[in-house]
Amino acid sequence: MVEQEADEILKDADVADVAFLVVGDPFGATTHSDLVLRAVKAGISYRVIHNASIMNAVGCCGLQLYNFGETVSVVFWTDTWKPESFYDKIKRNRLNGMHTLCLLDIKVKEQSVENLIKGRKIYEPPRYMSVNQASEQLLEIIQNRRGQSEKLALSEDTICVGLSRVGAEDQKILAGPLKEMASAELGGPLHSMIISGHLHPLEIDMLKLFAVSEASFENLKMTDSSTFTS
Amino acid sequence: MVEQEADEILKDADVADVAFLVVGDPFGATTHSDLVLRAVKAGISYRVIHNASIMNAVGCCGLQLYNFGETVSVVFWTDTWKPESFYDKIKRNRLNGMHTLCLLDIKVKEQSVENLIKGRKIYEPPRYMSVNQASEQLLEIIQNRRGQSEKLALSEDTICVGLSRVGAEDQKILAGPLKEMASAELGGPLHSMIISGHLHPLEIDMLKLFAVSEASFENLKMTDSSTFTS
Repeated sequence: MVEQEADEILKDADVADVAFLVVGDPFGATTHSDLVLRAVKAGISYRVIHNASIMNAVGCCGLQLYNFGETVSVVFWTDTWKPESFYDKIKRNRLNGMHTLCLLDIKVKEQSVENLIKGRKIYEPPRYMSVNQASEQLLEIIQNRRGQSEKLALSEDTICVGLSRVGAEDQKILAGPLKEMASAELGGPLHSMIISGHLHPLEIDMLKLFAVSEASFENLKMTDSSTFTS
Repeated sequence: MVEQEADEILKDADVADVAFLVVGDPFGATTHSDLVLRAVKAGISYRVIHNASIMNAVGCCGLQLYNFGETVSVVFWTDTWKPESFYDKIKRNRLNGMHTLCLLDIKVKEQSVENLIKGRKIYEPPRYMSVNQASEQLLEIIQNRRGQSEKLALSEDTICVGLSRVGAEDQKILAGPLKEMASAELGGPLHSMIISGHLHPLEIDMLKLFAVSEASFENLKMTDSSTFTS
């Protein structure tokens, strides 16, 4: 929406102060860079007020921020479109021992194909991907890749973290193997998810505070964590 | 210092509210996880208030946060101790097309060897690594590696970004090749530095706003950026 309304936002910004409020940090999204570039081009000075962002607030689960690799986006699959590209990024991070923050898809102000064709400005209810949905998509990819006899970068037992409403009073964090994340109860949106990489003992101690079941962490050394460590 | 004073901080926290203020986000540092674990062990509940952190505020230079790989720490070299491990992490990020945030060393409350031996609690003046110093160390590593006829992951011409006092009124951002960063004027601490990976056109447009010299960005496609792209 910022894309379409950039000119509107900047219209009087040369003579009056204009503020543009965003969720998280202003530079989490490409479109906000675009707004800055338009402002500068129009000779309008700007000032950025930084804020906590999910990109750093995820540290609350105990996984260290400097052990994260590239952040990935997990998109809603449809019947005909099931991209797996985020798996390959998670794999690359895992091969380097790094954790992966997965930002889960948000669909707001979407039109159905029918309404789009008929030009009716009727929007579907907003959808926010849950950790359960993201986990199921990941489990399906693992199944697919297993069929291709590819060396797997993660499995049903890989330790993951589900986070919801981080920063809010009712935030929730759950840690456990991927297969448990498919049914973990995290409540309403927004959700985020982390696929762990190599786990430091202190990180394991922190994750245990949020364990779906303590048992999952007991055999950690012998099973998953040793497969892909740096 | 938190390490030594954790018990002091938590002493009366079971009967009164205790706040522990930090620079940046509370979970940027391992030691703060340790404080949480001690609190939980002592049956003391805790709540985290997130904040902007250099880990996400660096986005103000226009490089996209989701294109960053592992964050590295650059430590002060001494005459006898010149670790190069951060170079290898930068290399790994570059090979994957990712940017690298370099957190620069801070030395506060350090004792000289003499004062340490004699048990004198006299502390050296605080030292904060500048982008100039970090650049010089990196240039020296590049020289060393070139001697070993290793395929270089970065060169004197790799586009870097120097940032100082991010978030403050007098923050400063400069972008240019590494060799220019060795003498870039960024003023007082704290400094941070980014080694770019693969640059998206929008990212280049943003960096140009902070260019030491426009010329450095003109031949970008033909020289550095194509060497290590995903």
